[in-house]
Amino acid sequence: MVKFDEKGLIAAIAQDANTGEVLMLGYMNEESLRRTFATGQAWFYSRSRQQLWHKGETSGSYLIVRSVLIDCDGDAILLLADPQGPVCHTGNKTCFFQELKKEDL
Amino acid sequence: MVKFDEKGLIAAIAQDANTGEVLMLGYMNEESLRRTFATGQAWFYSRSRQQLWHKGETSGSYLIVRSVLIDCDGDAILLLADPQGPVCHTGNKTCFFQELKKEDL
Repeated sequence: MVKFDEKGLIAAIAQDANTGEVLMLGYMNEESLRRTFATGQAWFYSRSRQQLWHKGETSGSYLIVRSVLIDCDGDAILLLADPQGPVCHTGNKTCFFQELKKEDL
Repeated sequence: MVKFDEKGLIAAIAQDANTGEVLMLGYMNEESLRRTFATGQAWFYSRSRQQLWHKGETSGSYLIVRSVLIDCDGDAILLLADPQGPVCHTGNKTCFFQELKKEDL
């Protein structure tokens, strides 16, 4: 049902369960998905650090997961979550705080 | 500003601009991003068919793009869009209509 890619990862969107705001896009491996279910908090896999990443472990901004959805073809996940603080490392509530314009290409 | 991966792609989330519902996750290359800006409708890159994909070209369910956001590290896009019909090929409004449970792993 869950289709991990050739690197063993699946894209995971985190959305604020209350406001509907899209907060971030991360990647999960099977172990991060297992830990997410076990702890009720979002765990990702950091592609740059190549290790499991418990979101909020340094900032305290954990994502409390209310439900996990999977898309029609099983290769993307949507986490509905309550963020315990700003999700972005810049201090913004969401990582999607910049508008992209035609001129930026 | 836009960081395409080693395959020249970037993950792109489509969100309903009105309801906040997350509709789908697709991938875009530079050309699909250019066409999205040029036409005001979402264009993706189909990884299975390995070609540009004008969302809605067969179903009529185009995604009219209101704004394009990019995340803090430039490797994910969020399209705020007005869907002209069901986004999912199953006929569902969103591709994220199935809940994933611990037991499914």
